[in-house]
Amino acid sequence: MSGSSFGKVFQVTTYGESHGKALGVVIDGCPCGVPLSEEDVQRDLDLRKPGSNKYGTKRTESDKAVILSGIFEGRTTGTPISIAVFNEDQNPRDYSLISDIFRPGHADYTFEKKYGFRDFRGGGRSSGRETLSRVAAGAVAKKILAEIGINFLTYTKSIGNIECEKNDFGSIKKNPLYMPDNAAAEKASLFLDECIKNRNSAGGIIECIINGLPAGLGEPVFDKLDACLAKAIFSIGAVKGFEIGSGFKSAVMSGSENNDSFFADGSGNIKKITNNSGGVLGGISDGSPLIFRAAFKPTPSIGAMQKTSDSSGRNREIEITGRHDPVIVPRAVIVVEAMAAITVADLLMQNMFSKIENIKKIYQA
Amino acid sequence: MSGSSFGKVFQVTTYGESHGKALGVVIDGCPCGVPLSEEDVQRDLDLRKPGSNKYGTKRTESDKAVILSGIFEGRTTGTPISIAVFNEDQNPRDYSLISDIFRPGHADYTFEKKYGFRDFRGGGRSSGRETLSRVAAGAVAKKILAEIGINFLTYTKSIGNIECEKNDFGSIKKNPLYMPDNAAAEKASLFLDECIKNRNSAGGIIECIINGLPAGLGEPVFDKLDACLAKAIFSIGAVKGFEIGSGFKSAVMSGSENNDSFFADGSGNIKKITNNSGGVLGGISDGSPLIFRAAFKPTPSIGAMQKTSDSSGRNREIEITGRHDPVIVPRAVIVVEAMAAITVADLLMQNMFSKIENIKKIYQA
Amino acid sequence: MSGSSFGKVFQVTTYGESHGKALGVVIDGCPCGVPLSEEDVQRDLDLRKPGSNKYGTKRTESDKAVILSGIFEGRTTGTPISIAVFNEDQNPRDYSLISDIFRPGHADYTFEKKYGFRDFRGGGRSSGRETLSRVAAGAVAKKILAEIGINFLTYTKSIGNIECEKNDFGSIKKNPLYMPDNAAAEKASLFLDECIKNRNSAGGIIECIINGLPAGLGEPVFDKLDACLAKAIFSIGAVKGFEIGSGFKSAVMSGSENNDSFFADGSGNIKKITNNSGGVLGGISDGSPLIFRAAFKPTPSIGAMQKTSDSSGRNREIEITGRHDPVIVPRAVIVVEAMAAITVADLLMQNMFSKIENIKKIYQA
Amino acid sequence: MSGSSFGKVFQVTTYGESHGKALGVVIDGCPCGVPLSEEDVQRDLDLRKPGSNKYGTKRTESDKAVILSGIFEGRTTGTPISIAVFNEDQNPRDYSLISDIFRPGHADYTFEKKYGFRDFRGGGRSSGRETLSRVAAGAVAKKILAEIGINFLTYTKSIGNIECEKNDFGSIKKNPLYMPDNAAAEKASLFLDECIKNRNSAGGIIECIINGLPAGLGEPVFDKLDACLAKAIFSIGAVKGFEIGSGFKSAVMSGSENNDSFFADGSGNIKKITNNSGGVLGGISDGSPLIFRAAFKPTPSIGAMQKTSDSSGRNREIEITGRHDPVIVPRAVIVVEAMAAITVADLLMQNMFSKIENIKKIYQA
Repeated sequence: MSGSSFGKVFQVTTYGESHGKALGVVIDGCPCGVPLSEEDVQRDLDLRKPGSNKYGTKRTESDKAVILSGIFEGRTTGTPISIAVFNEDQNPRDYSLISDIFRPGHADYTFEKKYGFRDFRGGGRSSGRETLSRVAAGAVAKKILAEIGINFLTYTKSIGNIECEKNDFGSIKKNPLYMPDNAAAEKASLFLDECIKNRNSAGGIIECIINGLPAGLGEPVFDKLDACLAKAIFSIGAVKGFEIGSGFKSAVMSGSENNDSFFADGSGNIKKITNNSGGVLGGISDGSPLIFRAAFKPTPSIGAMQKTSDSSGRNREIEITGRHDPVIVPRAVIVVEAMAAITVADLLMQNMFSKIENIKKIYQA
Repeated sequence: MSGSSFGKVFQVTTYGESHGKALGVVIDGCPCGVPLSEEDVQRDLDLRKPGSNKYGTKRTESDKAVILSGIFEGRTTGTPISIAVFNEDQNPRDYSLISDIFRPGHADYTFEKKYGFRDFRGGGRSSGRETLSRVAAGAVAKKILAEIGINFLTYTKSIGNIECEKNDFGSIKKNPLYMPDNAAAEKASLFLDECIKNRNSAGGIIECIINGLPAGLGEPVFDKLDACLAKAIFSIGAVKGFEIGSGFKSAVMSGSENNDSFFADGSGNIKKITNNSGGVLGGISDGSPLIFRAAFKPTPSIGAMQKTSDSSGRNREIEITGRHDPVIVPRAVIVVEAMAAITVADLLMQNMFSKIENIKKIYQA
Repeated sequence: MSGSSFGKVFQVTTYGESHGKALGVVIDGCPCGVPLSEEDVQRDLDLRKPGSNKYGTKRTESDKAVILSGIFEGRTTGTPISIAVFNEDQNPRDYSLISDIFRPGHADYTFEKKYGFRDFRGGGRSSGRETLSRVAAGAVAKKILAEIGINFLTYTKSIGNIECEKNDFGSIKKNPLYMPDNAAAEKASLFLDECIKNRNSAGGIIECIINGLPAGLGEPVFDKLDACLAKAIFSIGAVKGFEIGSGFKSAVMSGSENNDSFFADGSGNIKKITNNSGGVLGGISDGSPLIFRAAFKPTPSIGAMQKTSDSSGRNREIEITGRHDPVIVPRAVIVVEAMAAITVADLLMQNMFSKIENIKKIYQA
Repeated sequence: MSGSSFGKVFQVTTYGESHGKALGVVIDGCPCGVPLSEEDVQRDLDLRKPGSNKYGTKRTESDKAVILSGIFEGRTTGTPISIAVFNEDQNPRDYSLISDIFRPGHADYTFEKKYGFRDFRGGGRSSGRETLSRVAAGAVAKKILAEIGINFLTYTKSIGNIECEKNDFGSIKKNPLYMPDNAAAEKASLFLDECIKNRNSAGGIIECIINGLPAGLGEPVFDKLDACLAKAIFSIGAVKGFEIGSGFKSAVMSGSENNDSFFADGSGNIKKITNNSGGVLGGISDGSPLIFRAAFKPTPSIGAMQKTSDSSGRNREIEITGRHDPVIVPRAVIVVEAMAAITVADLLMQNMFSKIENIKKIYQA
């Protein structure tokens, strides 16, 4: 397969280009009996919808989720859930300018080299619109996980070099940048205004905390929880770095600083004093909150003049006009959350047959 | 499966605990006709062998690779290659001290929670010895890749906060820490002596450069080249961070700084002026050298006294005695290279059927 | 995943119930550059369309294929091809009669036991309409295979105990039962009229011949060509038997009768005198035509009174009214062909990296 | 991968040639806590051991199972179980006769075409010895299934045209042909003596009954229980046909004959009056005994003179000397059982997450 499926037992398969008839996802392996409606999916899709603030592209689509299969009387049936978002904005545009030119920082050149042919309209399959499918699947995964108390807190940690100084989670949805620090959000807004003026763009960092994870998720060697998350998050277009817990900082810490001591809390639970591990030990969840961060590069589409070349091997210049975000980080927050949820749902199910006693519990009832 | 396989078409499956009869790997999907001998594998295994310098554990095993299948008259046959390393050092040790105690920073607690039962001898499946199997498989992958001119340069970029200041690749194998900067290596040696004296440990960063990659490797959405590498590298025990190209730094760069301009070099090739992308655009190799970095946490086994708890829920103290490395980074260099090679070999083969013209090239010859 | 994907590198994922909004398929791993239009898909869909003759159900739907993604300017782009068939016939019917009763020979009981809950409208996911998705994917697979000269001849070999006595392939499309023997088709028609009169049903056998297969397809141990075909064909609803070449008859033959002698034909080709193997030796295509047969049970929906029970554990009687086919074999012909084509396309691509020389041929050009 | 793995969550990967150092299997996904010893595996291996009666080849190897990993204190640990059988009989033989000749009915020709190169010693990877690995894995699967009361009854149904007339299961292990009918076994013995005298060989049919299967196993569309079994069984070397329940006979039955009526047995259970379905409806186990049959072709290695050709394209004659079985059916009985057990174990685990209530049962305990 050409890499459009993710997950082993909770498996999502996406399709669609930004200028085809629809984008969508098929979710196979969702258990029967989970309450699910189109509204559950729409809520998340709206969070990544362009045009919701001045830092998003101007594409005005409703991006409506339509569930094509897998639901009966408000609950999942255990059969594949197909969710589509039909493209409304397919008006023939003039792409002659970019049909043969390679935009710097984009996948135009690599698609051309891989396939010798590409759907150049709006970036084709490498368009940010592809993440719609991920968000829809993530909404389903979160419904499953909510049934056993697993939930997600995902937010913008920094934009450019403006970093949140506090974790005031109540304010995340109160500013358009999804930062847990309103003051930082205001500074970041001014910075982004500057970017727009300079026809330039910015990157940033997203942080995600997963609460309620039982200990034991993740498979020992290759399918470690953190390894699967690394792939999930790195598969999002503009991600250039991923770290968990103390992350890159751990490389300069000593063992005695970085190790998290266990302690028995007196009521039968074993906990950790610190959480440098970020909630994972040996690739398996340790019962602490899981914490990871992803670094996003600045939006490659910028209005400023750039040097580049075209498919005929001529050197060219390009000024990218039209809609584009000065930063994609805020819109990517829900995408990061979706990929994390899909990953956790998959490993949650895989872990069910780790013990023969679990198998007996299901089949001897 | 419980996560012991990696790769879709070039698939490696590992097994083995540090105190069982053997560790090993089965490599399925290796093409027929690749020259391969036990020496090819041994060369790489020797690079991770413990005891080769004072910063490695004292376990004295020969770690000899034995090829059990898949080779005939010095070449691969296209059938699975099974490589085993038999454990010699199985002498019954006294594990009563750690059989019920949870070592901080180790996977003891999470294995116990996952399986309710664990092989506590030497860390069982979460032991560093598990990487022997990866190194053996990586040696095979590198033989395949060498046939079309792809090769690897992997080295220690930093230990603790001592960072290499130059990339003098000739000196990598001239110092026991595999650093491309002999002066940095000397400083790091002094620092590690200090760690040993303090019964403490250090982490560090490994960098890998892949040269000779054709453009076009990596699948557009979930199986992006960088996403697959992220998982591959993050599946190595102590890794806490991964970045590609400008990595975390890209989050504070502007689009115009971070974008790599293309240019036509006059002899029909399209190249990039800079390489902030690290050789990957849209998840697909762009023909530039691929560059990534991995952050390793400090070795969790330290001699210093640590607070922890045991499986009966009592609070305890532990001083880990016996063999352990003050830093695992130098020995992990070949492991990182192996995982990168396995990943690239897999995507190289997957890319073969991206075009109908490739299919015709094979079947109409 | 709950089993809705088929294939390793050419992977199809289907979704949809007979009474949801749509049924469809996502095809991942189709190479770039294959000419493909909605008409190519429609041609095959029309062959399984109900209502085309008196032996098909009366559901009057147009079953129009809509390609949602993966095509640009009449050719595949290498990205996933999503094809949907929207259900038109969703009028609320009275299902109260069968919502809690278990129809003999159907999957009502087993779905209820598996999920504890089922979409009882029209059989839900176990409906014959699910095969629409397979036929659409098969049409794509056949377009790929046609590029290198592989083609399929699939037909009804017998209905009830009326067996074709000749293989007059020209007549297959000249009778509504797709039999290569018009006389047999006439007899079978009379027999089916009798079935209808008796409110009963019939089964039959479908045979498929694949021509143009290069030698070498199929993987030695578990993914043998015949094993993959066996699964592909057995995954079609009513199949109860599968055999290849001399099949069950080979069990009563002697080795000297059953072995096919090789001979050199004088122009550099090695051929077989007979084809008891059915085109496969050791699970790998041998260059002869591949021949297999599948046995279909009689349609379980019959008008005659049947004893059964319901979900409350009461014994009941049922007379199934409404549309149903006295035989599904003719409509299943194109489904068998589709599954065979999907299987061959997958193994064709997998075989590409069996030799290092093939890899060099692609990457050193 | 080149097809050496089977199963999605209970995954077995085999390796080895008949003349390499070892054959073996890695079993990934076996739950923790299953009692397992080398004796459990040896018991099954001994059932397929050659030389146990005059109808088996004369190769005299002990075929000892060695467990290399995954067991601690007599129980599985949840990590991969590696089992190897070291080849003792590697004495250099004279293979010059068959190194370039294509034995009729064997895979010599197809391996040569696939790889352009083959390990001709003893059939290499296509040797019957490859099934050792399957039997070892099957022994592990059966240990898991026994924990919840699933067990297997597998036997020779016919040899040549001598068919068992009764199912006297007590006599299966009382005759060397594993037939549940001692009189038939005696007739078959005389028939095989005749085969040997004529330097010819015979085929036959194996039947397998699985008892204790809970209803609900098997996934609705492609991974139907019967489809997975069809692949599993067809992947065994000499199988040419597979059928379930009434099988090929169902093609000539009417719907009213073939449908199995359900009835409520008065104590809350729903059962079927007949079992034409063979225990599977819509690809899902229905709680009845599962019954399938596999047709084996006659052993291709025969002493009689055969016409064939060689790799230089010359026509040749061959009389295969040395060890070979006049029939492989009795030795294949345990192989069929092993593959059935592996398949059921895999689907048993996959079915665990079909319902959200099962997930809650595991994680909310």
